[in-house]
Amino acid sequence: MQDALLALTKYWTDRGCIVVQPYNTEVGAGTLNPATVLRVLGPEPWRVSYVEPSVRPDDARYGENPNRLQTHTQFQVILKPDPGDPQELYLGSLDALGIDVRAHDVRFVEDNWASPALGAWGLGWEVWLDGLEITQFTYFQQAGGMSLDPVSVEITYGIERIMMALQGVDHFKDIAYAPGVSYGEAFGQSEYEMSRYYLDDADVEANKRLFEEYAAEARRMLDARLPVPAHNYVLKCSHAFNVLDARGAISTTERARAFGRMRALAREVAQLWAARREELGHPLGLAEAPAPAAPPETFPEVAEPAALLFEIGTEELPPAEVTRTVDAVRAAVAAKLAATRLAHGAVEVHGTPRRVVVLVADVAPREPDAEKTARGPRVSAAFDADGNPTRAAQGFARGQGVAVEELGRVTENGVEHVAAARTDPGRGAVEVLSGLLGEVVAELRAEKNMKWNDPKLSFTRPIRWLLALLGTTPVPVVVSSLEAEPKTRVHRTADHPVVEVSTADGYLEFLAGHGIVASAEDRRAAIVAEAERLAASVGGVVDLDGVLDEVTNLVERPTPILGAFEERYLELPAQILTTVMRKHQRYLPVRARDGSLLPHFVAVANGEVDEDLVRAGNEAVLRARYEDAAFFWRADLRTPLEDMKSGLDKLTFADKLGSVADRAGRIAALARRLAEVVGADDDTLARAGELAKFDLGSQMVIELSSLAGVMAREYAERAGETPEVARALFEMELPRSAGDALPGSTPGALLSLADRFDLLAGLFGIGANPTGSSDPFGLRRAALGAVSVLRAFPDLRDITLTRALSLAARELEASAVDLSGEALEVAREFAVRRYEQQLLDAGHDHRFVNAVLPLADAPAVADATLAELTGLAGDPDFAALVAALQRVRRIVPADTAGEYDPAALVEPAEVALHRALAEVPSGLTGLAAFAGAATGLTAPVNTFFDEVLVMAEDPAVRRARLGLLAAIRDLAAPVLDWQALGTALG
Amino acid sequence: MQDALLALTKYWTDRGCIVVQPYNTEVGAGTLNPATVLRVLGPEPWRVSYVEPSVRPDDARYGENPNRLQTHTQFQVILKPDPGDPQELYLGSLDALGIDVRAHDVRFVEDNWASPALGAWGLGWEVWLDGLEITQFTYFQQAGGMSLDPVSVEITYGIERIMMALQGVDHFKDIAYAPGVSYGEAFGQSEYEMSRYYLDDADVEANKRLFEEYAAEARRMLDARLPVPAHNYVLKCSHAFNVLDARGAISTTERARAFGRMRALAREVAQLWAARREELGHPLGLAEAPAPAAPPETFPEVAEPAALLFEIGTEELPPAEVTRTVDAVRAAVAAKLAATRLAHGAVEVHGTPRRVVVLVADVAPREPDAEKTARGPRVSAAFDADGNPTRAAQGFARGQGVAVEELGRVTENGVEHVAAARTDPGRGAVEVLSGLLGEVVAELRAEKNMKWNDPKLSFTRPIRWLLALLGTTPVPVVVSSLEAEPKTRVHRTADHPVVEVSTADGYLEFLAGHGIVASAEDRRAAIVAEAERLAASVGGVVDLDGVLDEVTNLVERPTPILGAFEERYLELPAQILTTVMRKHQRYLPVRARDGSLLPHFVAVANGEVDEDLVRAGNEAVLRARYEDAAFFWRADLRTPLEDMKSGLDKLTFADKLGSVADRAGRIAALARRLAEVVGADDDTLARAGELAKFDLGSQMVIELSSLAGVMAREYAERAGETPEVARALFEMELPRSAGDALPGSTPGALLSLADRFDLLAGLFGIGANPTGSSDPFGLRRAALGAVSVLRAFPDLRDITLTRALSLAARELEASAVDLSGEALEVAREFAVRRYEQQLLDAGHDHRFVNAVLPLADAPAVADATLAELTGLAGDPDFAALVAALQRVRRIVPADTAGEYDPAALVEPAEVALHRALAEVPSGLTGLAAFAGAATGLTAPVNTFFDEVLVMAEDPAVRRARLGLLAAIRDLAAPVLDWQALGTALG
Repeated sequence: MQDALLALTKYWTDRGCIVVQPYNTEVGAGTLNPATVLRVLGPEPWRVSYVEPSVRPDDARYGENPNRLQTHTQFQVILKPDPGDPQELYLGSLDALGIDVRAHDVRFVEDNWASPALGAWGLGWEVWLDGLEITQFTYFQQAGGMSLDPVSVEITYGIERIMMALQGVDHFKDIAYAPGVSYGEAFGQSEYEMSRYYLDDADVEANKRLFEEYAAEARRMLDARLPVPAHNYVLKCSHAFNVLDARGAISTTERARAFGRMRALAREVAQLWAARREELGHPLGLAEAPAPAAPPETFPEVAEPAALLFEIGTEELPPAEVTRTVDAVRAAVAAKLAATRLAHGAVEVHGTPRRVVVLVADVAPREPDAEKTARGPRVSAAFDADGNPTRAAQGFARGQGVAVEELGRVTENGVEHVAAARTDPGRGAVEVLSGLLGEVVAELRAEKNMKWNDPKLSFTRPIRWLLALLGTTPVPVVVSSLEAEPKTRVHRTADHPVVEVSTADGYLEFLAGHGIVASAEDRRAAIVAEAERLAASVGGVVDLDGVLDEVTNLVERPTPILGAFEERYLELPAQILTTVMRKHQRYLPVRARDGSLLPHFVAVANGEVDEDLVRAGNEAVLRARYEDAAFFWRADLRTPLEDMKSGLDKLTFADKLGSVADRAGRIAALARRLAEVVGADDDTLARAGELAKFDLGSQMVIELSSLAGVMAREYAERAGETPEVARALFEMELPRSAGDALPGSTPGALLSLADRFDLLAGLFGIGANPTGSSDPFGLRRAALGAVSVLRAFPDLRDITLTRALSLAARELEASAVDLSGEALEVAREFAVRRYEQQLLDAGHDHRFVNAVLPLADAPAVADATLAELTGLAGDPDFAALVAALQRVRRIVPADTAGEYDPAALVEPAEVALHRALAEVPSGLTGLAAFAGAATGLTAPVNTFFDEVLVMAEDPAVRRARLGLLAAIRDLAAPVLDWQALGTALG
Repeated sequence: MQDALLALTKYWTDRGCIVVQPYNTEVGAGTLNPATVLRVLGPEPWRVSYVEPSVRPDDARYGENPNRLQTHTQFQVILKPDPGDPQELYLGSLDALGIDVRAHDVRFVEDNWASPALGAWGLGWEVWLDGLEITQFTYFQQAGGMSLDPVSVEITYGIERIMMALQGVDHFKDIAYAPGVSYGEAFGQSEYEMSRYYLDDADVEANKRLFEEYAAEARRMLDARLPVPAHNYVLKCSHAFNVLDARGAISTTERARAFGRMRALAREVAQLWAARREELGHPLGLAEAPAPAAPPETFPEVAEPAALLFEIGTEELPPAEVTRTVDAVRAAVAAKLAATRLAHGAVEVHGTPRRVVVLVADVAPREPDAEKTARGPRVSAAFDADGNPTRAAQGFARGQGVAVEELGRVTENGVEHVAAARTDPGRGAVEVLSGLLGEVVAELRAEKNMKWNDPKLSFTRPIRWLLALLGTTPVPVVVSSLEAEPKTRVHRTADHPVVEVSTADGYLEFLAGHGIVASAEDRRAAIVAEAERLAASVGGVVDLDGVLDEVTNLVERPTPILGAFEERYLELPAQILTTVMRKHQRYLPVRARDGSLLPHFVAVANGEVDEDLVRAGNEAVLRARYEDAAFFWRADLRTPLEDMKSGLDKLTFADKLGSVADRAGRIAALARRLAEVVGADDDTLARAGELAKFDLGSQMVIELSSLAGVMAREYAERAGETPEVARALFEMELPRSAGDALPGSTPGALLSLADRFDLLAGLFGIGANPTGSSDPFGLRRAALGAVSVLRAFPDLRDITLTRALSLAARELEASAVDLSGEALEVAREFAVRRYEQQLLDAGHDHRFVNAVLPLADAPAVADATLAELTGLAGDPDFAALVAALQRVRRIVPADTAGEYDPAALVEPAEVALHRALAEVPSGLTGLAAFAGAATGLTAPVNTFFDEVLVMAEDPAVRRARLGLLAAIRDLAAPVLDWQALGTALG
């Protein structure tokens, strides 16, 4: 292992990195060493590499867990500015470690990093070696709340993991640390003892006092304008906090306050450092950005129609961005071409993680010339009485560069103007494309964008090359520092990773010849076909759920590989196994015909690899993960449910809202209040409430949080709870995402609702409303979930949003949470908006949707009404009724009460209407019922308007007529928002 | 610089060291990393190397001082067990650093290391590169109060110094840290800011609280039996203490308490660690010691007398031990040879730092046979009345293996015994020498002894080889793991550092041929001759004072090299310059004919070197040191004396005895009390007392403590004090060592006495008596100094030891020091013993010395008496007087009072004696006066004894006679201890 550290050090120093020492106070990651977190600030260049033993008290396991250590070894590299080829440099370092990157499956898997405590974030990847995460690779975008310019590339190797993989050992203690000395022999005792300190023996009060001392010293140093010692004390703060956290000694308020303080201090440190460096005149100089490429001066002409090939080469895009970018580029190219006069054939766009390929067939060599007519003054103003051109006409002609005599005429909106005709000469195709394609690149945007070494561009990941050919003619596309060349890049491990491209024709085949499948559909089909074949080879079928899209866009050429795991792991609940396979490893599970899992999986490697090596690597990773899971499973099964539940006391839920235990208590109480509303309280609900969320205290869910609920059901069943209780506990977590299953049982539904309304009331109550794209507590998902459950359980319709939120608020207030005044209304509105969106997404007419929204407090009711409204939409009687009602609504002022003295009605039409109204039963619920009953009003209403003047001169008469109409309005009002419905049926 | 660290890491890992990371909390030295301080404990093997940024807040200088940093970089190596050739391995590492050890002067200069706070010590060297200390090299003997078995070799490189030397830069900031990045650019800001923190901005109270928290956590972890976290907190304690110390915030009591706590904690940590490793079954196994060599089974015979060569090869001995060992070996060989019957010629022994060479001329090939006679029973018991042998005779004969008839006779004490004669055959010379020389080695001992990898041997430094030849015949000497071979080792940088030796003849010439001068006299002569020549070449004379002996024994072949320094440094007081040259660099100063310094020096390198390179290196070292000194000099001159003095408040003197300021105050007061005793108080004394010790607060003396007093005089003169005051301040520090100058002025003498009596009374008062070789406060030197001053100033004779100590005690008690009861008497006795030793060392007859010791309370009086006694020693009258007095003393019981009734005396002889006694004047002081006056008693005393029976029957007569004699005894008593004088003159 020490040789590996030396090899990395040598590799990076040979590439201009200076070496610094690990920091001499405890840090949780190499990032916190000032050589990273301070040096990435400001304009000075900086290249550094160092080892950083990273201390994470929370990961302490007494040295027993094979993969988890309270101190693990990071090797950290910072390249500032981005050198332009950091991935290639990184792969070189693996080679220096003795890893054959051609034989192994090395992949860059989207991973975005953020540390709110440091005011820092970046975009990048986890690097996988045969499925094992060995490195974090990040383009650092912000630190200390400051945007970084230039950005730094941060590469963090997890040395123990790399060593375990390289040495083929199953436990970190077995790593050969040095010749004849194992890791365990060298550091085992320390690992055990420091674990003891962090988990059991650290004095809580002493560490709290230390935290305060450190924070105060940091504060003082900031005031003294000394960022280095200030940072030192921020680190000590952070470590003391981590110790307290590992000891389970951080209360909610303490956590919030501690984070707030550390964040504020870290930001000030960063700002002060940057300011001090500036005062010192930036001793290391200024980093240089690549110069902008020179814009093309001439554009070659082509003679014949030709195919256009345009490729945007990137570093590994996030899988979702591959699809999104392909669509966006297709749309942009089409739109921009349409805005030109260039004739062309079909536009075809494909994407892989590393490229977007645009193919446009039959692009004409030139735009045709165009006649352009410019409109001048009206003819009446262009010539005087003598027919001579006025000064206005002369001016217009001069401006258009034609003689006055040459002006023609155009008629616009019936008015005749003078006009000048001009020929707009068509541009050559290369010129047109050069500008157009440049714009496409410059305008690329993703959900989350980043900077790299390019001075202007911004995208989800760096764009590294452009290739543009019109037939065989290079199209000079220049964007910021990028300049198209007739070259592309194939697999980084190819003998010639950069290859010339001479023609646009047959480019997809060209790529295929280099082992790259540009079409996502082709890749997907290839994966499915091969995965099915592999699964069949072991008598199974492949389970394509969940990760196929992602896997398709994680590779440029899929190489499915069948792996196996030990059968004994099949004793674990299948959902644990599939969760690990899909979520952590992006493997496709293999099932028997009966749906049960087989001890196999399909991993999808990229390109040509040594399949046996890659299989063995992936199997080892899965084995380690399953071993972990089995360890948790066994440990959890030994733990009484109540003990797990008591662990929730230590888990903070959110600022001001107490622990997870507090929240679970509120959910249980709220579920029973909701049950009372609908008369559904029972023993199952009571018991499930007592156990609510207990599995969040299980080791399994702590490790694999997506198994919350699933594990509750498993553990509850095995602990002897009734199947109903177990089911309710599982269903409580449903739906976990849009489209997920909904609870099927009433207790499950009630718990699910209670869970979500507690969240909504609580977080809106404390003002933690979601903003923009930030929704850290998943309030959107919660609101959608609540609405979905209410829609699925019409029997629960008496649980309105208003009522549920107000009951939730009562529970929160009972546990001393102070809610802000309008919060419930805001929360309700938020839920209604989600519901509205749900309806619109389902394709309902927006006017119908709007019409039923007033009923949305009970979504099931609104659903029913919407269904009825939709059903009635083709009914001419209903349409007539609606039209009649709209007439009524239009004429009656809003403040008119629906009361009238029938004696004041004298005209036959009004009397007839009065009678018709009297026949409609009051208290109708539901639109259909109303429509059926009220249809008799249509004709009398229409007759009334035809024959009666509402605004009679006699005030008493007028009052009675208006009152009659208002009564009709009021009768109709509860069933629909008629105004919103508008003329939808007209 | 980073390349150097990598090169060292690679070098040592190639030699089996594991690499660990710097410790992740602040440490003052690499030693404190658990990879050293814990791993050296116990029996497990351990080889490690690592970089350790070492934090010493006290060395913070804002990055301004060229050589001093608050964080400097150590490279630390631990080899456990000692591999047997660690020096050679070390030299290889210098080679790996690109240092040509053949061209440079690399020397191992005695340096013993001890950290009382860690309960740790070791023996070893500073390694000098052309006069620059670049490495500490230590055989670790004890840690945490535990003796180490096996011992570890600790090698600590000072990287910044090495880099500055290699790169030829004058300031650490200019070191090229990495390509294109200087040390200052990389770490300058941190150096400045952390200096600010340590010196100016650290919050004192916060750091005090941190100290307490850390100590408490360490305590708790010890109680939890977790040595690793406990050690961690001890380190944090230590750093907090260092921060406080740098801030000048440690009061006397705090310092004492803090050290006590840290020491106790560190010891417990060590013991606990060792115990835990044992419980864990010593996971790294057990280190193996070299096997004992097999004892020789046969001994070759030699035919002719031959020369014996015996060489004991060592690692670099301390210079003083070279001489001492040569003497000890000479004595041991001579004595052991004398105990054999082996005839031999002269025994000649020489020594260098690396070898002791024994040459014995003309060793006979064998011992002659010897006749041995065993004494049997007395003849009277051996034969019965018939002349037949008794059973006793028979038994004796049988026991001796002879026939009864063969028994002879011997007469012993006039009694005739039977005797058996037997021939004891002589052994061969090789056999005799084999045993004898082995004993010499096994019995080698020095003042301070150490262990290395040998399982049994112990000496001042490791013994690495033995060479023994009798003529050309190898003598098989075996001692523990060592076995003599016919080989020696020459300079380590020689092409063949190990060479065969075929014969004892001409061995000194053989060594000379390899560039080694075995004779210290020859080396010294060579140094003197060459240094004189070099000095003359620049018109000067070399100043041989002080370091010649040491330099002679620091090299195997002296290569004096003339160096120069800039003339501007001559502005500094000469004593500063010479102190730096001698004490720090072991250079010989060069003076002009008038005694003033010239800007030159002579350094003495070892063996063949590149003289220009070595000269340049030594000049650079001296320049840096002089630059430091000049900096201090200028800073001090700007500082008023009172300001320096006020700095003494911050300097602890000793546990319970307050600060140095407290002590200076007591000295001033005590000096004036002493002056009152002899009527010598004056303004000079008063003023000098006010300023006493002020220079201990000067930067110069803080750096160069041996200049205490010298700087006081310089600074006082320049600050306008009178020459007398300046002189008194200087003389106060005299004598600084045995043989040093004594004060010449009375104020100086009084201050010197006050200084020493305060020390003696204070430290004995608090029970800090010196024990064995431990005398950390220099009480022996203080007592000797006080006695020397009192002897030199007879006018001050009224200042007796008793009086001075009691006055000192009064001052101490006035400043609230609580003295133990018998302390003053113990201190007085301690001083008397030093005086006695002084007299004996000066060659005085021990009986004379003992005779005057009762007067030693005033050493000047005792001196005078001793002189008189010595003067009278040949005087027959005095001898007769003494003999007469002894007769008197012998007969008179001790309790007899010297009173009598003259009327009871009747015999003429007793009357005559009474008359003679009456003629001796009473109250004589001084032996000579007494002797002159009392000589008339001799004859009457003798006559009295001849003619008078003292023990008369009449009690009254008897009483008178005894009273008369007792009166004579009492008259003589005050001038001498007659009993101790005994028969010295008889």
